[in-house]
Amino acid sequence: MRAPKGLEGVIVDSTAISVSDPEGYIIYRGYDLSELAEKSSFEETAYLILNGRLPSSTELKEFRLSLAKNRDVPPMVMRTISQLPKRSPMMDVLRIGVSLLGSFDRERDLQNTESNMRKAIKLVSRTATLVANGFRVVHGGQRPVKPNAKLDHSSNFLYVLKNKTASQLHVRSFEQTLILYMDHDFNASTFATRVVGSTLADAYSAASAGLAALKGPLHGGANEKAMEMLRNFKSVEEARDWVKQTLGRKERIMGFGHRVYRKIDPRVPVAKNILRRLSEENSQTAKLLDICLAVEEVMWSEKQIPPNIDFYAAPIYYSLGIPIPTYTPIFALTRMVGWSAHFIEQVETNKLIRPNAEYVGQRGLKYVPIEMRN
Amino acid sequence: MRAPKGLEGVIVDSTAISVSDPEGYIIYRGYDLSELAEKSSFEETAYLILNGRLPSSTELKEFRLSLAKNRDVPPMVMRTISQLPKRSPMMDVLRIGVSLLGSFDRERDLQNTESNMRKAIKLVSRTATLVANGFRVVHGGQRPVKPNAKLDHSSNFLYVLKNKTASQLHVRSFEQTLILYMDHDFNASTFATRVVGSTLADAYSAASAGLAALKGPLHGGANEKAMEMLRNFKSVEEARDWVKQTLGRKERIMGFGHRVYRKIDPRVPVAKNILRRLSEENSQTAKLLDICLAVEEVMWSEKQIPPNIDFYAAPIYYSLGIPIPTYTPIFALTRMVGWSAHFIEQVETNKLIRPNAEYVGQRGLKYVPIEMRN
Repeated sequence: MRAPKGLEGVIVDSTAISVSDPEGYIIYRGYDLSELAEKSSFEETAYLILNGRLPSSTELKEFRLSLAKNRDVPPMVMRTISQLPKRSPMMDVLRIGVSLLGSFDRERDLQNTESNMRKAIKLVSRTATLVANGFRVVHGGQRPVKPNAKLDHSSNFLYVLKNKTASQLHVRSFEQTLILYMDHDFNASTFATRVVGSTLADAYSAASAGLAALKGPLHGGANEKAMEMLRNFKSVEEARDWVKQTLGRKERIMGFGHRVYRKIDPRVPVAKNILRRLSEENSQTAKLLDICLAVEEVMWSEKQIPPNIDFYAAPIYYSLGIPIPTYTPIFALTRMVGWSAHFIEQVETNKLIRPNAEYVGQRGLKYVPIEMRN
Repeated sequence: MRAPKGLEGVIVDSTAISVSDPEGYIIYRGYDLSELAEKSSFEETAYLILNGRLPSSTELKEFRLSLAKNRDVPPMVMRTISQLPKRSPMMDVLRIGVSLLGSFDRERDLQNTESNMRKAIKLVSRTATLVANGFRVVHGGQRPVKPNAKLDHSSNFLYVLKNKTASQLHVRSFEQTLILYMDHDFNASTFATRVVGSTLADAYSAASAGLAALKGPLHGGANEKAMEMLRNFKSVEEARDWVKQTLGRKERIMGFGHRVYRKIDPRVPVAKNILRRLSEENSQTAKLLDICLAVEEVMWSEKQIPPNIDFYAAPIYYSLGIPIPTYTPIFALTRMVGWSAHFIEQVETNKLIRPNAEYVGQRGLKYVPIEMRN
């Protein structure tokens, strides 16, 4: 069987975790993502994705506690990160950090669901610390901040990153984006994680592969690129002109189009609402929202390409005062929930992922000793 | 389109690098692998795989030199490795080491063939140093040995690993196994590398994913497991009995069977000849060879399953006095050539690898506030 290049449109396996439908909706474990983003918390949604159902109060309390307890990263890992070249890409910092975490987990190579579930919690919790403190140390030239076990996942992340407690509005806006980014069926990084899982390698190895894939500009890199574009516009008119000129040169605008969605990325309306809410308290954000809407309008009228989640998550983070080099890592810290669930599902229903290739190279060449070659 | 699970038998893309044919032959860039293993060197074959043709004398000299020049690993990387928990799995050491190497390469994120070719040479050269010195430090409690730029790749590896010059017979036997393991079309680790490459992430990220996948017991882990079994047999009779009993319990024997080859893994006859040659100088090796042949015979008469390369590479390494925890890493250090070539080919002909999944989970669930849940 010959599959289309990039496996576009090819169903390679089944999953009970999530689905992104071309018609423009996403389901996590039976629930519509838009409803979860509106009503659920990071912890609840992560529990849902990992366990297949929403938690009871007691289960949620326990889950929150295990996330909070596992935030500290071994000192050797932070020491290593502090010795990396200043301003190293944060996705490299993260891949190194998560790879190192594996070395310090004694149950790393236990390959059963119970153990992999414990590793999932450690991975989700510590990756957030690696992003926040990794940025402080490698980019900010600041000291790491000790995580606060009393705060929930989203509040704690913002607290560590900025060494300052964030407002409720900011925390909730941030938390909603984490829910939106948490899983997305067989996207490239999740698929990389599953390919590694299919060899029965450990959870940290699989997570490293997810991080490796998410670094790519065709995947996770888009939200940072979108913001680097948006921040340059001084007015709606300037944005409109620039986009038209760029399209005229047949160049790509980051944050638009999606392999799955032709009409609408269902995460966009939710993100747009978050940005709207933030713009009510801040005139800079209001201006940024206008610019986004203008760019979206031009892209639609000129090319009929709709924005994707990256295009609206970026200005939310910007409005929250989150530094641009952490945008893809933030995507990673929440996608770590999805990767972990997919790793567990892959191992539980495993078959080695080993495709074939069509050989289009030469055949029948005879080896000529080097002294007889030209 | 629905593909069979594990993408078994599915052609996902074309490649001009290598082909493994079910009929029992392997081609690297037009040349039969058995002929290359007999006549070619590690450097020549690596050049062939990376550049698509055998080198001239001058090209080979230059290639050798760039490999030799790039053997030193930044001190910070070795320092980090020396702080890992003693006896950490060598594939973890390697994944951490290669991830760190990326941080110190200033052209890391340049995405063009010329730059990726330079990175390939650095990756191939330094991974060998990471395996040899990583083992010395993390497992052996020894000091790292400075690579010797006058030696070729295979001699230098054995020299660093043991801090002793190996005999010509040993070097050549080792080198031949490196050629045999160098590439194998779209195996799981190469496919993981290509999935990461398809996001246009950098070469070090892609190599980390290859290393992550190769760690799995269903992929690279098999040669170590095969040797752990073989070393326990005190006689041919004991080996025969144990294999029969194990098969009777329906358990798996490592080093047998292959997704691609039904009849013969073409690397096996070559490896068997290497082991035969080694057994002529050493009675222990002669005994080990007899045990291998006996296990092969039982597996064939009872199950009609032929051995794969791992089953015969393992006793070669054992005969050369190479420590078992480095067997999979050795596979990795030579497969790094293949991964690099596939990464470059993927980037040059790129389309994001993003498959679909069939969603088999629930639908239509309504969010119930936590206080109303049971």
